[in-house]
Amino acid sequence: MSELRSIFFPKSIAVVGASAAPGKAGERRTRSLLEGGFAGEVYLVNPKRDYVYGRPCYRSITHIEGRVDLVLVVVPPRFVVSAVSEAVEKGAKGAIIITAGLNNTDENGYDLNQEILRVAREGDMRIIGPNCSGLFNASASINLLGVPPLYNGGLSVVSQSGNIIDSLTHYARLKGMGFNKIISVGNAIDIDFYEYLEFLGDDPDTKVILMYMEGVKDGARLLETGRRISADKPIVAIKVGRSKAGSRAALSHTGSLTGDDHIVDAAFRQAGIIRVNSVDEMFDVARVLQGVPLPKGRGVAILSEGGGDSAVAADNVEELGLSVPTLSRNRMEKLGKYLMAGTGRSNPVDYGGTAEESPHKVIPPCCRICLEDGAIDTVFITGFFGGYKDIIGTYVEEHEIRTAKELVRLSEAFEKPIFVHTSFADQDIKAIKILKKKNIPVFESSIRVARCILALVERAEFQRRYRRNVRPKGPFLRNVAIERIINRLYEEKRYTMLETEGRLLLKKAGIDMLPSFLVKTGEEAIEAAGKLGFPVVLKIVSRDIQHKWDVGGVKLGLMNDSEVLRAFDEIIKNAREVTTAIEGVLVLPMVPVSGKVECLASVVRDSVFGPVLVFGLGGIFTEVLRDIAVRVLPVTKDQVKEMIREIKGYPVLKGVRGAKPRDIGALEKLLFTLSKIALNYPEIHEIELNPVIVHRKGVSVVDTLITLEEDQ
Amino acid sequence: MSELRSIFFPKSIAVVGASAAPGKAGERRTRSLLEGGFAGEVYLVNPKRDYVYGRPCYRSITHIEGRVDLVLVVVPPRFVVSAVSEAVEKGAKGAIIITAGLNNTDENGYDLNQEILRVAREGDMRIIGPNCSGLFNASASINLLGVPPLYNGGLSVVSQSGNIIDSLTHYARLKGMGFNKIISVGNAIDIDFYEYLEFLGDDPDTKVILMYMEGVKDGARLLETGRRISADKPIVAIKVGRSKAGSRAALSHTGSLTGDDHIVDAAFRQAGIIRVNSVDEMFDVARVLQGVPLPKGRGVAILSEGGGDSAVAADNVEELGLSVPTLSRNRMEKLGKYLMAGTGRSNPVDYGGTAEESPHKVIPPCCRICLEDGAIDTVFITGFFGGYKDIIGTYVEEHEIRTAKELVRLSEAFEKPIFVHTSFADQDIKAIKILKKKNIPVFESSIRVARCILALVERAEFQRRYRRNVRPKGPFLRNVAIERIINRLYEEKRYTMLETEGRLLLKKAGIDMLPSFLVKTGEEAIEAAGKLGFPVVLKIVSRDIQHKWDVGGVKLGLMNDSEVLRAFDEIIKNAREVTTAIEGVLVLPMVPVSGKVECLASVVRDSVFGPVLVFGLGGIFTEVLRDIAVRVLPVTKDQVKEMIREIKGYPVLKGVRGAKPRDIGALEKLLFTLSKIALNYPEIHEIELNPVIVHRKGVSVVDTLITLEEDQ
Repeated sequence: MSELRSIFFPKSIAVVGASAAPGKAGERRTRSLLEGGFAGEVYLVNPKRDYVYGRPCYRSITHIEGRVDLVLVVVPPRFVVSAVSEAVEKGAKGAIIITAGLNNTDENGYDLNQEILRVAREGDMRIIGPNCSGLFNASASINLLGVPPLYNGGLSVVSQSGNIIDSLTHYARLKGMGFNKIISVGNAIDIDFYEYLEFLGDDPDTKVILMYMEGVKDGARLLETGRRISADKPIVAIKVGRSKAGSRAALSHTGSLTGDDHIVDAAFRQAGIIRVNSVDEMFDVARVLQGVPLPKGRGVAILSEGGGDSAVAADNVEELGLSVPTLSRNRMEKLGKYLMAGTGRSNPVDYGGTAEESPHKVIPPCCRICLEDGAIDTVFITGFFGGYKDIIGTYVEEHEIRTAKELVRLSEAFEKPIFVHTSFADQDIKAIKILKKKNIPVFESSIRVARCILALVERAEFQRRYRRNVRPKGPFLRNVAIERIINRLYEEKRYTMLETEGRLLLKKAGIDMLPSFLVKTGEEAIEAAGKLGFPVVLKIVSRDIQHKWDVGGVKLGLMNDSEVLRAFDEIIKNAREVTTAIEGVLVLPMVPVSGKVECLASVVRDSVFGPVLVFGLGGIFTEVLRDIAVRVLPVTKDQVKEMIREIKGYPVLKGVRGAKPRDIGALEKLLFTLSKIALNYPEIHEIELNPVIVHRKGVSVVDTLITLEEDQ
Repeated sequence: MSELRSIFFPKSIAVVGASAAPGKAGERRTRSLLEGGFAGEVYLVNPKRDYVYGRPCYRSITHIEGRVDLVLVVVPPRFVVSAVSEAVEKGAKGAIIITAGLNNTDENGYDLNQEILRVAREGDMRIIGPNCSGLFNASASINLLGVPPLYNGGLSVVSQSGNIIDSLTHYARLKGMGFNKIISVGNAIDIDFYEYLEFLGDDPDTKVILMYMEGVKDGARLLETGRRISADKPIVAIKVGRSKAGSRAALSHTGSLTGDDHIVDAAFRQAGIIRVNSVDEMFDVARVLQGVPLPKGRGVAILSEGGGDSAVAADNVEELGLSVPTLSRNRMEKLGKYLMAGTGRSNPVDYGGTAEESPHKVIPPCCRICLEDGAIDTVFITGFFGGYKDIIGTYVEEHEIRTAKELVRLSEAFEKPIFVHTSFADQDIKAIKILKKKNIPVFESSIRVARCILALVERAEFQRRYRRNVRPKGPFLRNVAIERIINRLYEEKRYTMLETEGRLLLKKAGIDMLPSFLVKTGEEAIEAAGKLGFPVVLKIVSRDIQHKWDVGGVKLGLMNDSEVLRAFDEIIKNAREVTTAIEGVLVLPMVPVSGKVECLASVVRDSVFGPVLVFGLGGIFTEVLRDIAVRVLPVTKDQVKEMIREIKGYPVLKGVRGAKPRDIGALEKLLFTLSKIALNYPEIHEIELNPVIVHRKGVSVVDTLITLEEDQ
């Protein structure tokens, strides 16, 4: 951390490759540094120039007489290593390498990067980049990004793309938004994404962190760092790749399903990172996260000067899962005093024409009545506030200003957010400026207001539910029987458990399994069936047979001894055509099918995020409709509850159209136990239970598939 | 039409209730009319004033010496009738009644409205409003809306809310967008929504129609008028109520499902009406619909100065169902000439740093190469075009201008749309202005670009698929047997068909039905089962029993004579506990269950839109996940094909995870036949076939529910 501090707060900076030639990356950064007001020493280095922008140029870093803390390297690839060596020689703490073309994916680039790293590490110097676009720090007046001057503010950025930094900074400058620190991580051969993220998390001048990510390298660290930081400081992120291969590819099993954007989404939510899809949305959300109070729930009151705007707002708010609760009769009566006869007052509240001439007499009291309601967490004023003066007359301007001040007081007093949508949002209007300055966000678009309310609501929900880091709690499940199963597989270089092994493992881990018998002869099968009661199911058990159905290895619904005997013989005959390695035949009771609800419950070890819990209704719901809930482990029991309730098909479990509710408690227990197994046995790659039958009382695990990590 | 023409183009206007008192509705409209530059005569009427804004005031309309074509009435409710009478007396063609409080829902308002209508009709005068906000017509320099001056342009508005007109006009003025005609329909006691819509459809000065709707009164007319107009002229609409009762209420059967916003959505799409959700989105779409070429398909090429912006754009584009096709190797090679080494060229195309200094040398040729590709229908340039000059140097400005001009030429030459996303979109920049002026839309938000591309794509698809009005074609299905069934029900005042009647009707209409026998005794049941082959199903047939399952009136999977006999006796016994009106028991073959795919196929007569065809996978898919396709009838066979393919669960029918594809052709035929029945028998309220089993070959209708309209 202190290392990064000396990079963000150097006393002197050398620019290697300084230039005044228009269009050059070196020129842009030389200029932005010189114009940025940096109070420390600036040294320009360029062996081909005597002067750049009127300043003397050094032939190399080593020619600089003073101390050099930070070096910006913007020279062709072949000169980078010597620049880095000289920086080390000079005792610099860090080198920012802008130079592009040093890709680890091509051989020459890889070699150069390795050499750079070696030299830097020997000299205790850290490397930013290469292939990055630089660094900005308002707290030290450093602009090494080569962008025009930026406003100072509380936003700090860490980005995997330099181009997005350009877009962000241009957009912010035009919108009057200010930054504190910006870092382009580039190829990140030394300092990686999370180090910057942690630094910004601890940085007192950073109020909101903006992140741009392309790929996630270390999911566990993202989750942990994200959660730790966002407990106090909001993180807003663009993570691209939502629509890529993962979601386009055919979905054949859980592994591929969870290998996609679902996990990223789950991880971001668990880490409290607010995900947005474009630069403008990022700034909308970042703006409201600085100072606007967090709503305590999802209830929104809508106020407007007419039915049209309020209906549009209500649609947009409800579409995002927020609610527009009806106000109590008592409150509606109170509102009546301020409204025209016949206009809506149950929520949305429509003050008709009364507000336009005398906004101060109408809007604040209506707003107060709504804020007093326990069901209302946010007030959303929609229409054309700020423009009343244009419509009615200039004398209304002072009333609008008074209204704005009163709204500010109300939001502060009730600690509830007030949002304003108005066509005049982006105009130079006093009342609007007062609102914006005092944490009442004003937007030109009703949809954007709705999205920002949702972002605040989700942040508040994170604070309540995910803020604390969840640690898996004992008693740990590791037991001798389970370890023995795992060890045997590894000894035999098998990575998929036999069904008997899988069932034993789950049972030892505390999951209620159906009784079953592994039998070797038809007589034993009949005896087992007699113990279990008809109907029964017979399944082949063989290390060589993964897809039992495909080879005629499963017989369902056997009703009597003779059916069992015939089935046993057929299964053995079918299996012998494939292999001689037959462990036997598993006899199980048949789970009744009528009106059953089937689910998929699974844990799978994602290469990025580690073990992940997946729940869905199974079958088509999971494969075609992708109606699944995902959480990166560990999870709390409450989070498991939440998973079950967040799938769209949840009503099927709760009981729909007269159907009886299912045993959701048993399902929760099963999912939570699965999560504990995955956490306690890192050897397990995947456990897929599909289907799990959810009864009115209890659940039955019908099929198990357990695989181990192969590289252990 | 000519009547509306004389209202939009009067030679003289009288304002009854003219005023100069700030804040008054009469004052705002007096002022907007006087300042609007109307070339005809303006008469101000107010018995209490001698002068208003320096003009002499008349005591009443009848005191006006000249002719009066149009009267604006803005007086308290009790004076409205006399104002209307005087307008008639004076020979006016129309009266716009701004006055609020004349609601048909309260008695006094209803009586006044009736009196207004009576007087107006006697005098051949048309009424706009009451409770409307007025009229605007740039072609005649009339502003009776009481809003500040508007720009002239090609947008015309018809709105059920006056408040939205205020929002639209403020927003448009701030954005420099212009209107031609605006009409607020108010309570529409005389001239209704569709008359205005038709007028604007035929109006040569109207280029795009904007609509704001709260409730749809006459669905068939909306569909027909909308389709006729939007074949040539785009209609962009906000229709509120997306999130209301319909979608919140529990879903118990098709009726309630289709009673919601699904039908509105379907009808809008079939009518070519582009639905948007907020005022800003409306203007974005309206803007691009004026002059931007329509894309021929869904393929989008993305060009940018870096990986970040292009990844964001690709995500946003694909998320809306547009595609980002890979370019051919040949084209990638051609692009290589203009790009930096190592940047993306397969699409998205990333020109790296090359464009910023010399945009004219990079962007147009890259754009041309993409436009030449048959798979590319739209080019989407993202980043910070227009701002290169701020970053690189002022000398780049002329290159940006040249680039803009070249892009305009390319879009025109290829007749393909080019969109630009840039942080600098809303700045006063020459290159940006050239683009905007010449039909290359420029937006500050990548998401907004994606939405606008989708709107153009959908309009193009409408042009190809729905533009022609679909008329049901013969041979008509009306036949004697079906009429006899329907007549018998009406004679007996029954509105739900017996299953036997329903099956006969469907068979006569040409649908393959399972063979079945209605039997009266156990012996007959056994005989019938013998003919059909085991297993069979028995079902009670009684006019008093609607829910057969609830009373023990259905027995499935009967395997032999004795099971059939026992089932028959039980069913009769159960039925007798409920009623004596027993027609008999229906014997049907049992459709095999293994691996079946079940669907719901239904037609239902919606009170607003008339007969509607609904298709879904049935059960949970329909009830919980609401994965259904809806079309207002009539439909073409191609539209039926499209319905089946648009549900999310379509892969289930197509065959997923190794499952065999189902007989989609047979399903199409069934749906199309259902649509014909609904069109030919307006007596039928609903036919619900649920489930329909879709086999690998053919479909089986397992259950039928047919109800008649009760009010015939």
